[in-house]
Amino acid sequence: MLVRTLDQITDTDADIKTPNWRSKRIILAKEGVGFSVHETTLYAGTVNEFWYANHIEAVFITSGEGEIEDLATGEVHQLAPGSLYLLNDHDKHIVRPRTEMKTVCVFNPPVTGREVHDEHGVYPLIVEDAG
Amino acid sequence: MLVRTLDQITDTDADIKTPNWRSKRIILAKEGVGFSVHETTLYAGTVNEFWYANHIEAVFITSGEGEIEDLATGEVHQLAPGSLYLLNDHDKHIVRPRTEMKTVCVFNPPVTGREVHDEHGVYPLIVEDAG
Repeated sequence: MLVRTLDQITDTDADIKTPNWRSKRIILAKEGVGFSVHETTLYAGTVNEFWYANHIEAVFITSGEGEIEDLATGEVHQLAPGSLYLLNDHDKHIVRPRTEMKTVCVFNPPVTGREVHDEHGVYPLIVEDAG
Repeated sequence: MLVRTLDQITDTDADIKTPNWRSKRIILAKEGVGFSVHETTLYAGTVNEFWYANHIEAVFITSGEGEIEDLATGEVHQLAPGSLYLLNDHDKHIVRPRTEMKTVCVFNPPVTGREVHDEHGVYPLIVEDAG
């Protein structure tokens, strides 16, 4: 059993800060459980174009509101506490928080913590060495 | 892309109600993403002994507070918003919410929705047929 708090992650290497969002990675590939779990805050009024070419992601909204646009279809979905979006088809998408939005994110395969979003908003696939 | 809200799950087959807890399964094995995601509420003052012999589970606390006891070691950890516990070793454990606790839970392998806790608090392993 492993117990962690967000406070323990704040300002460590697992606390990723950008102008648009901040992501605290609580469980990473090194834990070896087949997924990673991040608590991510998206700032009000930002426009966030993302594409995870190599990962599936589920995002559950715990506070705040905004919208997500599916760039393949142009469809826009509203997001509020209790909404979840699942990027099960490597969907290119834009997230537009109207207020600060807090989320819990799950990635498969798990993020290692060494990825950075490249110029296309893509996370490269990095596999944690076993052992 | 798939977008769901807890309201859409309320009172469906994916809304599991027990005297001690209520779990809304948002993403299940049938989605085929390698994990399931549940929003689970544990009621104040309940004592919940769980053992997932076949699953790994991560639980992130979004509201409320309580404690978790690791039955292998007797160690007790406090839980509050921003805490996460990871059952990465099929740990037998007891969760004691002091107040109503709301959580986001991730299971690997994904829960199919057909499991029930047996008399030992165990989820059996049920694998979703492909196709």
